[in-house]
Amino acid sequence: MTDASGIAERGPTLFSSVALHSEPMANAELLSIGAELLLGETVDTNAAFLGRELAGLGLPLSGVRMLPDDRVVLRDAFADARRRSEVVIATGGLGPTHDDLSREGLADALGEAMREDPVLITTLEERFRALGPMPEANRRQAMIVPSAEALDNPIGSAPGWWVDRDGAVTALLPGVPSEMRQMWTEQVRPRLAARFALAPVAIRSVKAFGIGESAMAERLGAILTRPPEGVETGIYARDDGVHVRFSTRGELSTLDRCVEETVRALGDNVYGTDDDDLATVAMARLGELGTRELCSWEADTEGALLAILSAAAPANGAVRYVGGVLDVGGGGGPPVGDAVLQVSLLHQDAGGRSRVRVALSGAVSMPPTELRIHGSGPQRLRRAAYAALDAVRRLSSSAR
Amino acid sequence: MTDASGIAERGPTLFSSVALHSEPMANAELLSIGAELLLGETVDTNAAFLGRELAGLGLPLSGVRMLPDDRVVLRDAFADARRRSEVVIATGGLGPTHDDLSREGLADALGEAMREDPVLITTLEERFRALGPMPEANRRQAMIVPSAEALDNPIGSAPGWWVDRDGAVTALLPGVPSEMRQMWTEQVRPRLAARFALAPVAIRSVKAFGIGESAMAERLGAILTRPPEGVETGIYARDDGVHVRFSTRGELSTLDRCVEETVRALGDNVYGTDDDDLATVAMARLGELGTRELCSWEADTEGALLAILSAAAPANGAVRYVGGVLDVGGGGGPPVGDAVLQVSLLHQDAGGRSRVRVALSGAVSMPPTELRIHGSGPQRLRRAAYAALDAVRRLSSSAR
Repeated sequence: MTDASGIAERGPTLFSSVALHSEPMANAELLSIGAELLLGETVDTNAAFLGRELAGLGLPLSGVRMLPDDRVVLRDAFADARRRSEVVIATGGLGPTHDDLSREGLADALGEAMREDPVLITTLEERFRALGPMPEANRRQAMIVPSAEALDNPIGSAPGWWVDRDGAVTALLPGVPSEMRQMWTEQVRPRLAARFALAPVAIRSVKAFGIGESAMAERLGAILTRPPEGVETGIYARDDGVHVRFSTRGELSTLDRCVEETVRALGDNVYGTDDDDLATVAMARLGELGTRELCSWEADTEGALLAILSAAAPANGAVRYVGGVLDVGGGGGPPVGDAVLQVSLLHQDAGGRSRVRVALSGAVSMPPTELRIHGSGPQRLRRAAYAALDAVRRLSSSAR
Repeated sequence: MTDASGIAERGPTLFSSVALHSEPMANAELLSIGAELLLGETVDTNAAFLGRELAGLGLPLSGVRMLPDDRVVLRDAFADARRRSEVVIATGGLGPTHDDLSREGLADALGEAMREDPVLITTLEERFRALGPMPEANRRQAMIVPSAEALDNPIGSAPGWWVDRDGAVTALLPGVPSEMRQMWTEQVRPRLAARFALAPVAIRSVKAFGIGESAMAERLGAILTRPPEGVETGIYARDDGVHVRFSTRGELSTLDRCVEETVRALGDNVYGTDDDDLATVAMARLGELGTRELCSWEADTEGALLAILSAAAPANGAVRYVGGVLDVGGGGGPPVGDAVLQVSLLHQDAGGRSRVRVALSGAVSMPPTELRIHGSGPQRLRRAAYAALDAVRRLSSSAR
């Protein structure tokens, strides 16, 4: 038995210091607003999204605060953040109800009075026209301060705010992830890039399966711990393997040598770089081997393999995924077809390792093989599926 | 066509003020530590878990800060938080590498020097015995200050810290979710409950499908906006419907009237209370109707229905789920069996609504029906599956 993933469940290891070597152009902070975050009713995925986006812009977050729906707390938090940081982004608290207080909090911090904006009222009324009269509560969403510019929300009722005053930028965004992302991408990110003349951060990554983080760090040596001037490095354990990441605010070409060296050192554990994903790579390999259609059969995985295969982006010349079967004791065996990828999740031992049985039947075939994976919960299910995909990716031409 | 979920994608609406009416016994804050959080490489699910747990203990979080791996920043954050709050919980930064600085940050804030603890060294060495010699770097995990008590980590190398000094409690927990949860549950939660003589918060909820948040709020009226003294209320839109939540630090029986009134007002939209889940309820209904085994067939849902059915806890007398098929263009029709639940996800319109076709074939049957759902991304797939389960839950005895 080999260890298929080599991954223990833990966070990433960052090898060079976290902020890029050169100082960021401006300091950025995030305020995540809403009682539901503090009560744990909602996981704050907005923070991770904006953290990645801001790092990519060259404005890595120096801090995030989750705050309650309390006007005085919000006022103080906006005032503190604006004193410390040139860029303050806030999400949430822009709804129509009395506990949506982000507008009031920022207005108080700025020392400005809010007034109802006639253009915003018209936009809101138009939005509600098809649904009947606009509830009185929604008028609050048309309130704005003189120094704020309203940010259009094409998919929700809450407009955002963009305030650029006293050398500090503050943006209010809705808390609903889809609305936040669209407003960020279309309106806030371009404004920030122009306002701070930002040099983008270039990122390249190498993705491997079948090797653990520590073994990887040992094999990579100096490229990880002493990368070229201005390059940051990190290792991230993920369900689909271990990713090595290189970033720089300098020339993209500086990263090419890092990627080349990493690929050479990790050998056949490497399945791709950058946006490559393991399912797409495995499906492309089956296409190369002459398979046209793939179906899947899995036992006791809650459908992890078919979920990954059906969500994967199809590549040119790759096998076409047509569907899958989940068996949870139905007793029916694997279906017969052009190619059937099979994975069964076996028991878990006390150390948190599980055995996985993988096979491929059809014109291209792979005898049943047992692999070992780490992890628990949904992670364990997904790693079983990725172990099967990695085995397919490694198929030699003699499998035909 | 009816609107199956009635749910627009948005955050919860809290109807009475968020902290419980009576003042909390102590103030609690969370520090989430690690560059990977600020860079958005990791979503901070620990914050939501601890937010729920602390609220349940009667120590609702007054704030959360995400902080970088910077010794000075951490020192100041620990000192500030300990001045403001009787309870400070920190997660992350307890690993063996040079960027794990939570121990140093708290030691500096306390003005205490760390020393190597012989018992912790022995525990660590024992842990590594099977794996070869302990890496030198791991000795850092045996460092502790005089006022801290070490918290055992049975599933990882990082011990936690419990510090009770100057009237404020500070606990350091690992960032790995499984290690954090175990240490919290076994060691920190009981210590906090004893230290602050906490009265637990009682929580009851009512779960409904097929009604939107605003319609629900209107139907519930005063029970939501003016609940009995000492009771907090909130409405939460989830993939499996809308949940109404009542909580109190007083008598559990105070909540019974709220639950009764809510169930009466919402009628047949209610599918359960408290820990009931829609899949288990639907499977129980099929069992009542005489079905013994259920399989599923779905198209273009990435396997959302089979994932939910296979993860559901089986109840006594419920149908047994034996497996499912995902069709993504394979052309094969639904399988034949004792009962086959079918769901197909149809196109999405510009307003973010999708149509879902649902049917049940076999001894117990339901003719094909079209339902409407809201949402996008993975949420849309899961809501399609829940719409099918809700239709099963509503089956009358004539379906047999």
